[in-house]
Amino acid sequence: MAQTTDMYAALDQVIPAVREEFETLLCDLVQIPTVSMDPAHAGDIQRGANKAAEILRACDAQAEIVETPGNPVVFGQFMVNPAYPTVAIYNHLDVQPANEPEWQHEPFVFHREDDRYLGRGTTDDKGPALTALLAARFAVQHDVPLNIQFIWELEEEIGSPHFAHFIRRKRKALTCDSVLVSDTVWLSRHQPAVPYGLRGMLPLQLRLQTGSKDCHSGLTGGVARNPVGELASLIARCYDAQTGRVKIKGFYDDVRRSSRAELTQFLASGFSLATFKKAHGLRKSRTNDVREAVQAIWSRPTFEVHGISGGYQGPGVKTIVPASAEAKISMRLVPDQDPKRILALVRDFVKQHNPDVTVTCDGMLPPYLGECSGAYADAVREAVRFGFGKLPSFTREGGSIGAVVTLDQMLHVPIMFLGLSLPEHGYHAPNENFDWSQASGGMRAFVKYFEQLSQMTQRAAGVVAPSV
Amino acid sequence: MAQTTDMYAALDQVIPAVREEFETLLCDLVQIPTVSMDPAHAGDIQRGANKAAEILRACDAQAEIVETPGNPVVFGQFMVNPAYPTVAIYNHLDVQPANEPEWQHEPFVFHREDDRYLGRGTTDDKGPALTALLAARFAVQHDVPLNIQFIWELEEEIGSPHFAHFIRRKRKALTCDSVLVSDTVWLSRHQPAVPYGLRGMLPLQLRLQTGSKDCHSGLTGGVARNPVGELASLIARCYDAQTGRVKIKGFYDDVRRSSRAELTQFLASGFSLATFKKAHGLRKSRTNDVREAVQAIWSRPTFEVHGISGGYQGPGVKTIVPASAEAKISMRLVPDQDPKRILALVRDFVKQHNPDVTVTCDGMLPPYLGECSGAYADAVREAVRFGFGKLPSFTREGGSIGAVVTLDQMLHVPIMFLGLSLPEHGYHAPNENFDWSQASGGMRAFVKYFEQLSQMTQRAAGVVAPSV
Repeated sequence: MAQTTDMYAALDQVIPAVREEFETLLCDLVQIPTVSMDPAHAGDIQRGANKAAEILRACDAQAEIVETPGNPVVFGQFMVNPAYPTVAIYNHLDVQPANEPEWQHEPFVFHREDDRYLGRGTTDDKGPALTALLAARFAVQHDVPLNIQFIWELEEEIGSPHFAHFIRRKRKALTCDSVLVSDTVWLSRHQPAVPYGLRGMLPLQLRLQTGSKDCHSGLTGGVARNPVGELASLIARCYDAQTGRVKIKGFYDDVRRSSRAELTQFLASGFSLATFKKAHGLRKSRTNDVREAVQAIWSRPTFEVHGISGGYQGPGVKTIVPASAEAKISMRLVPDQDPKRILALVRDFVKQHNPDVTVTCDGMLPPYLGECSGAYADAVREAVRFGFGKLPSFTREGGSIGAVVTLDQMLHVPIMFLGLSLPEHGYHAPNENFDWSQASGGMRAFVKYFEQLSQMTQRAAGVVAPSV
Repeated sequence: MAQTTDMYAALDQVIPAVREEFETLLCDLVQIPTVSMDPAHAGDIQRGANKAAEILRACDAQAEIVETPGNPVVFGQFMVNPAYPTVAIYNHLDVQPANEPEWQHEPFVFHREDDRYLGRGTTDDKGPALTALLAARFAVQHDVPLNIQFIWELEEEIGSPHFAHFIRRKRKALTCDSVLVSDTVWLSRHQPAVPYGLRGMLPLQLRLQTGSKDCHSGLTGGVARNPVGELASLIARCYDAQTGRVKIKGFYDDVRRSSRAELTQFLASGFSLATFKKAHGLRKSRTNDVREAVQAIWSRPTFEVHGISGGYQGPGVKTIVPASAEAKISMRLVPDQDPKRILALVRDFVKQHNPDVTVTCDGMLPPYLGECSGAYADAVREAVRFGFGKLPSFTREGGSIGAVVTLDQMLHVPIMFLGLSLPEHGYHAPNENFDWSQASGGMRAFVKYFEQLSQMTQRAAGVVAPSV
C-alpha cells in the first residue's frame, strides 16, 4: 500500500477526474428499467445484469452473472491475494416501478441538473453501487491489501426470494470476512446515519370476487355484494388507519420493546420530525411527538395499504358494483416478530371476518438486528467522518433488505451498513435522485473503510502489505 | 288511420323487412363511442348527435340538435297535425365507459351473433331508441292520428345535469300530452316489467391528500398517514359492507316504507332471485330472502363504493405510502329522501370522522314515483301484451334516470315506461347486448301503444282520424 497520506492525496485528485465516468456509468444503468416487480421487464433485468458485468470488467474486476430460479445476481471481485482479508459489498440493481404522475422527467432517462442526477434507481441503489465500485478500483490500484467482492442483486425490491440460492451456489467463492451493505438513508444531508437494524416485511394481496362481471349499481345495488366495500371494511378491521395501531389479535405479542438506552440513542441521533416530514412531503403526520415518531419508524411494526384495485378509476363516477377487488397490503415487522406466525394470524383474522377473501403471500422477510459497536462499527464511523466530515448516528432503519437477513443467516460474518442516500433523494418516490456530493464523499468514505478493514481483519495477521 | 287489422297485418310484414335497416342504424350509433363520463370523448358526443339527427331526417322526421351548456340533446318529431295528441319518447344516446377486461369483442365495434347485437350502448339505450323510431315512422306512415316527438339525451349516464336547460329552451315545442321513457329492464326474458318508480342518486368523490408524493413505506411507515387506509376506514364507518346498512345518522329518516299492497305486488311480480343472480353474474348475494331482495333493489336506498384509486395497482406489491387517494361512491335514494339533505348529512359525517377528506358532488337526482294505474298504465300493459304475448308486472326500478325527474317537474304530464332491455343484456356491464326478439316485439308494442294513445288523449276529442 502507498503511504496513506500519498494515497489520500491521490484520491482527492482522482475523485473529480472520475466524475464524468461515474455519470456515464450511472446513465447506462438508470436507462435500463430493471423493474423486478413487473414481469414485463424481465428482458430489462437481463440487460441490466449484462451491463453491470460489463462495467465490472471495464473496471478490471472479474464478473460473473449467477443465475437463480428468479433473477440473476451479478457477482464481481477484485481478488488480489488470497491471503488478504476480503470484504463483500452488497448493492442491488433492480428498481421500483415509476408509474407516479409526479415525475417531471422521464424516470428511465438519466437527467443531470448541476450536481443532481435524476431517474429511477439513481439513489436506490445504482448510484451507491457505482460509488463503491469506483472506490474499490481506486483502493486496489493503490495497493490497499484487501480483496473486494461485489454482490449486485436484482430482486431486492421484491424481497430477495432467490438470494439464498445465489449464496448456496457461490458459497465457496464468497470468502468475505465481512459484508458492507450500501442501501440505506441518512437522517438528513447534515446527519449521516448507520443503521444496525432493519424491519422485516410481509407483503400480502387480499382478493375478493363476488361476481363474474361489473354490474349496474341501480339494477343490482342492495342485493349485490360490493367487493371494494368489503375489502375496505376488512382493512378497517385490521388496523386503525388514523393511529396505525394494528387490531389483529396477537400481532404485537413478540415485539421487543426498545431499551431505554436505545431510545436515548434514537433521540440523540439528530432525527428531526420537521426535516423528515419535509423530505418525504408529508403534510401532516400521525404524531408530532419525536419520541413516538422515532419508535414508529424504527422499532415498531406497521400495517399499510398500498392500493385497492378492482373498481372504476377513470374520470367521473361510473356507477357499477365491481365484480372483484384486490387490496395490496404489507406489514413491516420488528424483532422478535416471526413473519410466518404473523401470516398465520392474518389468515385466521381474514377467515373469521370475511371467509371469501383470499390471502396471497409472495414472500416474507424476518426483521434484522445487528451490532452498533465494536471494531467494524468504529471503522464505519471513522469512514463516514473521513468522507463527509460528520460523525454518523447509529439508528435502526424502517425499511427491509431481504438479502441482509440471508447473508446473516448463511455467512455468519459481521454485516455493516454504509449508505449514501438522503431522505430528499426519494427512495421509491417520484423524481428519485442522487447527487455528486454524496457520491464523491461516498468514495472517500469507502476508501477509508477499505483501508481500515485491511488493517484490522484477523486473517490479515502476518501478511505484510507491500509498501511503495 | 287504416283499419287497425290491416295496419297490424302490414306491421307483421314490415318488421322483418326493416331488420337490416335497424341493424345498420344500430351499427352506426354503436360505433360512435358516446361516453359522456370521459371528457376525451367530447368529439364523439358531437358526432353521435349529428348521426342521430341524420337518422331522424332519413326517417322523414324533423330533427334539431339543441345545444346546452353541456352535451346537446337531439330533438326530433313527426308533427303530423297540431290537433292530434302528441307523445314524446325519451331515450339517451350516451353510454357508459367500456374499460372492463371481460369484453370478448371490441366494445365500440358492432358485432352481430345470430339474433344478438353486441357492443356498448346496444341495449342502453341506442337499440330501444331506434326501435321506437322505426315503430313511430310506421305509425305515422299508417296514419295513426298522433304526433310523436323524440328526446334523445347525451348526458343520461352522468345524471342529466343540463337536461332542464334543454326543456326550458324547447318548452314551447314540447307540446306532448304524455311522455314515454324507454330505458328500463325487464325482470327476465319471460317476465316484462313496467316500472313506476326510480331511485334517485347522489354520486360523490371523497379525496384525501396527505403528502406531496408517494413515500417508501419502510422509511416513513408508522409516521406517514396512509390515505387509502383512511378512506377505507371512513367508508367502513359510512356503511356495513356486508349487510349494506348505512351508518350515517339520519340517512333513513325520510325513507317511505313500502305499503303492504306494494310489497305484495313486488312479490307477485315474477321476480326470481335465482334468475337475477344468474343474469348479473352474482356468486352470492347479501340476502337469499326474496322479500328482502325486492325491497333492497326497488324501495330501499343503497351506499356503494365504485372504486378507490391513488395507490399502486400494478403487478406485485409496491411498498409505498400513497400521497393521496380518491374513493368514488354513490348512494341510490328512494322517496322521500332529499339528495340535498343526504349530501349535508354525508358532509357532516365526513367532517366529523376525517376533516381532511374533501367531498365533491357533481350532481344529484331525486327519486321518482309515478302511477301504476289508470288509462296510460292500461295502455302500456296492453301494448306489452300485444308486442310480446305476456302481461307486464308493474314494479319499481332500482336505477335512476335523471331526465325523468326533470320531465315530471317541468312538463307536468303523465310519464310512462316501456323498456325493452333484459337483465342478461348487461346494462353498464361488459359484453352489453341487445337482440332482435326484443327489438321486433318492441316495435309491435310501440305501435300498439301509439294507436291506443291516439284514441284516448283528451286533446284528441273531436278530431276524427281519417279512415282509409
